[in-house]
Amino acid sequence: MSSEFGHLLKVSVFGQSHGKAIGVVMDGLPAGEAVDLAQLNAFLDRRRPGKSALSTARREADAPLFLSGLENGVTCGAPLCAIIENSDQHSSDYRELADKPRPGHADFTAWVKWGGSADMRGGGHFSGRLTAPLCIAGGIAKQILARRGVFVGAHLASVGTEEDAAFPLHPTAELLDAVAAKAFPVLEDEAGARMQQAILAARQAGDSLGGVVECAAVGLPSGLGGPMFDGVENRLAAALFGIPAVKGVEFGAGFAAARSTGSANNDPFAVRDGAIVTTSNHAGGILGGITTGMPLTLRLAFKPTPSISKPQQTVSLSRMEPAELVIRGRHDPCIAHRAVPVVEAVTATVLLDLLLEGNHGNF
Amino acid sequence: MSSEFGHLLKVSVFGQSHGKAIGVVMDGLPAGEAVDLAQLNAFLDRRRPGKSALSTARREADAPLFLSGLENGVTCGAPLCAIIENSDQHSSDYRELADKPRPGHADFTAWVKWGGSADMRGGGHFSGRLTAPLCIAGGIAKQILARRGVFVGAHLASVGTEEDAAFPLHPTAELLDAVAAKAFPVLEDEAGARMQQAILAARQAGDSLGGVVECAAVGLPSGLGGPMFDGVENRLAAALFGIPAVKGVEFGAGFAAARSTGSANNDPFAVRDGAIVTTSNHAGGILGGITTGMPLTLRLAFKPTPSISKPQQTVSLSRMEPAELVIRGRHDPCIAHRAVPVVEAVTATVLLDLLLEGNHGNF
Amino acid sequence: MSSEFGHLLKVSVFGQSHGKAIGVVMDGLPAGEAVDLAQLNAFLDRRRPGKSALSTARREADAPLFLSGLENGVTCGAPLCAIIENSDQHSSDYRELADKPRPGHADFTAWVKWGGSADMRGGGHFSGRLTAPLCIAGGIAKQILARRGVFVGAHLASVGTEEDAAFPLHPTAELLDAVAAKAFPVLEDEAGARMQQAILAARQAGDSLGGVVECAAVGLPSGLGGPMFDGVENRLAAALFGIPAVKGVEFGAGFAAARSTGSANNDPFAVRDGAIVTTSNHAGGILGGITTGMPLTLRLAFKPTPSISKPQQTVSLSRMEPAELVIRGRHDPCIAHRAVPVVEAVTATVLLDLLLEGNHGNF
Amino acid sequence: MSSEFGHLLKVSVFGQSHGKAIGVVMDGLPAGEAVDLAQLNAFLDRRRPGKSALSTARREADAPLFLSGLENGVTCGAPLCAIIENSDQHSSDYRELADKPRPGHADFTAWVKWGGSADMRGGGHFSGRLTAPLCIAGGIAKQILARRGVFVGAHLASVGTEEDAAFPLHPTAELLDAVAAKAFPVLEDEAGARMQQAILAARQAGDSLGGVVECAAVGLPSGLGGPMFDGVENRLAAALFGIPAVKGVEFGAGFAAARSTGSANNDPFAVRDGAIVTTSNHAGGILGGITTGMPLTLRLAFKPTPSISKPQQTVSLSRMEPAELVIRGRHDPCIAHRAVPVVEAVTATVLLDLLLEGNHGNF
Repeated sequence: MSSEFGHLLKVSVFGQSHGKAIGVVMDGLPAGEAVDLAQLNAFLDRRRPGKSALSTARREADAPLFLSGLENGVTCGAPLCAIIENSDQHSSDYRELADKPRPGHADFTAWVKWGGSADMRGGGHFSGRLTAPLCIAGGIAKQILARRGVFVGAHLASVGTEEDAAFPLHPTAELLDAVAAKAFPVLEDEAGARMQQAILAARQAGDSLGGVVECAAVGLPSGLGGPMFDGVENRLAAALFGIPAVKGVEFGAGFAAARSTGSANNDPFAVRDGAIVTTSNHAGGILGGITTGMPLTLRLAFKPTPSISKPQQTVSLSRMEPAELVIRGRHDPCIAHRAVPVVEAVTATVLLDLLLEGNHGNF
Repeated sequence: MSSEFGHLLKVSVFGQSHGKAIGVVMDGLPAGEAVDLAQLNAFLDRRRPGKSALSTARREADAPLFLSGLENGVTCGAPLCAIIENSDQHSSDYRELADKPRPGHADFTAWVKWGGSADMRGGGHFSGRLTAPLCIAGGIAKQILARRGVFVGAHLASVGTEEDAAFPLHPTAELLDAVAAKAFPVLEDEAGARMQQAILAARQAGDSLGGVVECAAVGLPSGLGGPMFDGVENRLAAALFGIPAVKGVEFGAGFAAARSTGSANNDPFAVRDGAIVTTSNHAGGILGGITTGMPLTLRLAFKPTPSISKPQQTVSLSRMEPAELVIRGRHDPCIAHRAVPVVEAVTATVLLDLLLEGNHGNF
Repeated sequence: MSSEFGHLLKVSVFGQSHGKAIGVVMDGLPAGEAVDLAQLNAFLDRRRPGKSALSTARREADAPLFLSGLENGVTCGAPLCAIIENSDQHSSDYRELADKPRPGHADFTAWVKWGGSADMRGGGHFSGRLTAPLCIAGGIAKQILARRGVFVGAHLASVGTEEDAAFPLHPTAELLDAVAAKAFPVLEDEAGARMQQAILAARQAGDSLGGVVECAAVGLPSGLGGPMFDGVENRLAAALFGIPAVKGVEFGAGFAAARSTGSANNDPFAVRDGAIVTTSNHAGGILGGITTGMPLTLRLAFKPTPSISKPQQTVSLSRMEPAELVIRGRHDPCIAHRAVPVVEAVTATVLLDLLLEGNHGNF
Repeated sequence: MSSEFGHLLKVSVFGQSHGKAIGVVMDGLPAGEAVDLAQLNAFLDRRRPGKSALSTARREADAPLFLSGLENGVTCGAPLCAIIENSDQHSSDYRELADKPRPGHADFTAWVKWGGSADMRGGGHFSGRLTAPLCIAGGIAKQILARRGVFVGAHLASVGTEEDAAFPLHPTAELLDAVAAKAFPVLEDEAGARMQQAILAARQAGDSLGGVVECAAVGLPSGLGGPMFDGVENRLAAALFGIPAVKGVEFGAGFAAARSTGSANNDPFAVRDGAIVTTSNHAGGILGGITTGMPLTLRLAFKPTPSISKPQQTVSLSRMEPAELVIRGRHDPCIAHRAVPVVEAVTATVLLDLLLEGNHGNF
């Protein structure tokens, strides 16, 4: 079992919600890359909780502390390690959970796998808090990619049954930036308003909502990836399912393609400004596991936050009998909007790894 | 770039559509496992083309030849290599394709990546024919799993807009066998009839259809997998996107969970016959990347076969100008129904790999 | 490029000599394993410098700080991260080195690979100081192994031309402990006295000495490892060459076997107390990449410390012309005796990884 | 357990001595590389047995059959699979071995690990015959390397106590070719004559001899590899220990460095023809796990062939009592001279993998 992904660039995440610190090691980063800390902190802020009634009140101080890998703000070729200290390590709220696994959480499976040794408090190693170090890695990757004309951005495509518009055929870097700058990352603010209302309604009902995040990467060269098991989709999917609560991933038209016809779904080739493009992009920028040079698009399904305040049916592990569980404290009634930068982060990290391998199969 | 997946059990596929042979190497198979060749051949027959008007007329002789790894029909601990000889290696039909990439195929991306060296004829290393060696690996894995009470089965959940019923909460091994025995692998034969009509209609229109395959694995112990990037979903997705034409994967409720609420989507725990179960299975048998012991369920979106006989817009690579392409020959108007055993094969292989690691995190 | 080794148990090291901290992430540790901190610190003390005239005066405070992976002193299944803060981060002594690569050091190759981005000060990521986090990992692995009757120990087999005795055919845990407890880790103290004199003489001459470390592991089950590229020797060698200054590794009789005959080198099998043993152990406990159950023995060649105070010939990178270099400051005139616990650490970590895979090829 | 090595270029070997065929899969080969079959067969001939009284009389037809990966003699980017059919698959000679493990062979450890399932006949997956597919991979790698000015060659440095001269400081491609062309691959033919006499004497005594192979690679760029666990030495050692009978590996001065002083062992830097070189090469072309641009040199210790005709002490596995074993048939009295091209092959394959990653740490 591994908390790591990547080939030439390996990213390894560590930490539990209530340990001393959480962090990330990036091994294989190219040297000589400046890391703009202000820009990185601004990126980290996008996933931070406690900013509105839409998310948990818990305060995090997510300023990363760099232990290695940077010299005067520039990567030096050695593994980069950055940590975030946990200011709030007490765990009294979680005592009841040790015996009553929360439905939809990993409490039960962690108990099966690790028994009494498992740190269930606050989700242990499964905690959404571990997406913070992922964002450190991804924020750095995004800066390195942007320097090469590759831009990664995402938006909240839906919450419950409320839907945002989809990205246009050619999202621009400006559009991606504009969405990122919004407090609620949607393309159409009216859709965003409806989503926020739905989230608040779910909170008032002691319930929660799922959502979908759409992510795009523009400026990628064609030729990245490969066929079979090491393609762009394989590698992105393998990493993206590491984001807590993700239950589905699709590229381009995805599941909609399964309802379509070949004549409608095939993307015709054309020549534009001396380059070969496709005039539609149902492939999501990937054919045969290899980038086409068109925007890479993917969509991720996030399940509703399992922590709800409504009473739930569970079992007592010690007595092996039914038990009712009421989860106390404040919890995010929806995680999908805060997951938007996390999706960008993981996508950017995988794409940087692919770029390091290059896009040609000869040498 | 790699044509391999797996951790303790590595599966590596080789071959091009028009080379001498295609094959598979399985490294890390447990020793002492009998391989029932009749059962394996019956499994391979399920994906074989040419059986009806629904699929291409091309004949394949898919009887595998075992070069290593078996002693008297039993695995011996050494890597197993099995090949299937290509009887039909001529490639004249594909000459036009060298200059005009087929929309929806990997011709263009292969040309970018490997230039003139790429074997585009018949799809090269991207060919659906490579799913045959995958089925050899998966057929062997299925036999080893079945001996331990783990059964993997799949059905065609939809073709275009025609839908089969979903698997019940607890699919039995008998149900999985019954679907596998059908010429058209659906749960409800009436739905199957509609699907077949839709496929034939697409063929007559010179078009093609996509579809969805649902797969289930029953009898898995709880505790397999792990959090973050090496979980059951990560590893299955990484391998499943290696099946040609897959554009999406979801586990349990998947994208439907994103439209749901926590109170509806959370699976309540209960005690049944001394074991902890959930009374619904929106999680698809996986929480926090670890199996719960409930049936593992997943759905895969297959895009419509890109080879259609309708004229299509493409470009001439040599002249960098628009070109029309008409693909000749007979091609599958839908690949999803033939992909059903392939999905079982890849799923079974990954699950065997996970089982070899065991389900406990202590030792 | 990777600062990591291991399969089921991945160990990743980070830090530069003059960064904020150095550390290690262990991913895949079994859960429920107590870590005795006093015992761990005692182990770390064995490699610490500044204890005598034989090593550099630089003070290190090597007490590890655990950021994750432990709950109440017991492993919890999540990745364990431990760091050691660098108290002494100034780097003024190293300014000259930026232009004049030290012979025998990685200054030149780091400059080629990473250019001006490379952190050359104090050896950067190549620093012997990174063996401290390796010892944290190995010290924990040793505790877990000892609980299962597997003991790993090493001694200084030679310094320059002065040689210690070799381990007996069956080193006991007591013998391994006794050597570990010595200030100078040799089997024969008279040989140790000669070695120390040789080291002091080298220091007085402004020179340095190499040495050989012999390591043994007793109590291993037979059946660990496998043939070809994933055998016990392959995996140990791959990790052991990660220790700075190692230029050779041999198992059992090693290079002496190359001068021997089959009749002398083959280890006859015999039955002792109901178990199959060999009556000699030229194989070093490994046949065909798989453990025999006899003690595993290996020897590592350490080159002389490249930092010597004698003037040396080098070049000025900026002017591409010859230059003389005098390395100032105090440096270890021999590294081999301090490397003894490091060799134990890496060996123990690899063996724990192998044990996690088990020793049988069926399941 | 894995029969594979490599990162971007993965090489996987399969086959047992008495199966239908043995073979190799190379995944990640660059496309567009011509494979000169005549040259490849000439290379394979160098390891073939039966050429003289010095080796076994068993005939092998080692002409490789390419199943995939080549188009008109040029690599196409898809995995290359080549097999060699086993003409001689009967195994009657090996019946006694099933109960009496041969000292020095993997019979015992294979029995422990795989029990009755293990194919012990002729060494199973441990057989020296599997070095033939390794030579196919290495022969192809050597051709690709030579096209880029990198030449890999080896010679027999010693047999028993008879020693050849060492490679000069700068072996030329011509020198490497000249040694390769010899029936007995030594630098000094007089030394070779003594070695051959020693081998014949060992055969007459029913015994066998070990030996050492020295390998060099010239023309490598500086900057390949990296520090810690993914360095050039780590990766070469991990693969080289996959060659049967290897018990030690050293780079540059290796174990001799351990008996030396820093002032003697450090390689001074100098400028020659505008390039930075070292005036000696005790480092074997590697500093800090990274190539210096000087010739890479390594030495491998091969133990004496364990198959000797003298009676040996073993045990009966079924009766758990002492037994005498006399191995019949003809066996190589020394394997080291036939291992020379195998060492070149594995070294070349690893170096090609490293070259594919490039020699710079930025991008």
